[in-house]
Amino acid sequence: MKKNQNDFLKNLESQIKQSIPGHSVDCVIVGYKNYELQVLMVKQFSTDKWALPGGFIYKDEDLNDAATRVLKERTGVEYSFLEQFYTFGKYKRRDIDQVLDDLRKGKLNSPFTEEWFKQRFISTAFLALVDINQCDIKAGLYSDDCDWKPVSGLAELMFDHNQIVDKAIEKIKKQLDYLPIGKALLPKQFTMNDLQRLYESILQKKLDRGNFQKKILKLDVLIRKEKFYSGGAHKAPYLYEFDDEKYKRLLEEGIAFL
Amino acid sequence: MKKNQNDFLKNLESQIKQSIPGHSVDCVIVGYKNYELQVLMVKQFSTDKWALPGGFIYKDEDLNDAATRVLKERTGVEYSFLEQFYTFGKYKRRDIDQVLDDLRKGKLNSPFTEEWFKQRFISTAFLALVDINQCDIKAGLYSDDCDWKPVSGLAELMFDHNQIVDKAIEKIKKQLDYLPIGKALLPKQFTMNDLQRLYESILQKKLDRGNFQKKILKLDVLIRKEKFYSGGAHKAPYLYEFDDEKYKRLLEEGIAFL
Repeated sequence: MKKNQNDFLKNLESQIKQSIPGHSVDCVIVGYKNYELQVLMVKQFSTDKWALPGGFIYKDEDLNDAATRVLKERTGVEYSFLEQFYTFGKYKRRDIDQVLDDLRKGKLNSPFTEEWFKQRFISTAFLALVDINQCDIKAGLYSDDCDWKPVSGLAELMFDHNQIVDKAIEKIKKQLDYLPIGKALLPKQFTMNDLQRLYESILQKKLDRGNFQKKILKLDVLIRKEKFYSGGAHKAPYLYEFDDEKYKRLLEEGIAFL
Repeated sequence: MKKNQNDFLKNLESQIKQSIPGHSVDCVIVGYKNYELQVLMVKQFSTDKWALPGGFIYKDEDLNDAATRVLKERTGVEYSFLEQFYTFGKYKRRDIDQVLDDLRKGKLNSPFTEEWFKQRFISTAFLALVDINQCDIKAGLYSDDCDWKPVSGLAELMFDHNQIVDKAIEKIKKQLDYLPIGKALLPKQFTMNDLQRLYESILQKKLDRGNFQKKILKLDVLIRKEKFYSGGAHKAPYLYEFDDEKYKRLLEEGIAFL
């Protein structure tokens, strides 16, 4: 898609004028595919750097609503697990010279945008857990590309975005019992094996099959549905769904599962 | 202490000039006294409203360092558990008219300060856990008083500070296993009963004495010291200390105690 730089610059300036200075949001949007956690990344317009989807905060917009908006704009997802997890505020977290270089390369260097981007920015980071199959991802105006990247082996990202991703993954691991992992990341129906492999991919270790099944069933949040006939030679496993009400109550208490 | 308003205003203006606009920090400094959690509060200069200790962020200061500075200025404590827990960014979290009223009452209403305080502010809130006995609390320049207030039955605080305290206490309850509760809030040496009463005050329920002792000892993080002779008629209990190294390792894994 060829973008008209003039329109683009005008659009950017208009958006800046509506936003509060010095504060942005960045979203670590996590999905699950190929037995691995995936993070949604955008390729910044006119650079070859990947970055987290993010944005500014409109002057009359709540901070958390800005993150909800970014999530929706990039994925189409409206209802999902979305929670702030850390505000990144190091004095030199952005390389201003690099920012200005990128603006010039993209021909976005009006005095107005340069002043804006030269500011120090504090960024509040949000963690979103989404079902990849429900996402309709879009690059948006200020990026050339948008794609899922496996968490392991991420390239060097813009600014401190690698650190932001690391902190999000650390949160997932540490607070596994308080996050709606299975419900948010898996499709509505799944097999016990799907659920176990999800936990294994996050914890980066094998779990005992019998033990896992026993513990999960003991939580009493799954509803057993019909069998899943894949046409393979294996015995058909059951499909499960989460019982929304029970699961919600359990999360509020903390699951204390593993 | 009578303050000279002119000097005060000059001082405030000079501090504002060194700070980044639109972002502040607020510290929920939690201690433990009279078998109850206590929060440090300051009475805002020239008002009768209590508020959390907080401040602005210097232009060349990391966000987290601003909170460390506030903690040190109010309590003298340098090394303590201090962690960000939430960034409050509702569009209308401060009543601007009230802010301007308060400035005028305190004769702090120069055009310069009015412009500054009329801005929308996003505030990053920090939780600090401190040993009250180690604190040397000070009201500081912009407040008339500074005191510990029991968490239960807090009066109406400035802005959204009641919400901020509520969220901090919720974090303590939910993440009890990941916070250095005993180590941060109790004196260096304590009895098993002291520790149990601390947990009971946070969880708001009685715990079984035998069970509690068994679980805590099983964590293998306590060092038993001499007996505590209080001169009372009871059998003298043992004093305990935390084993710093082991406790640190345990916290990193999550205690999974209760």
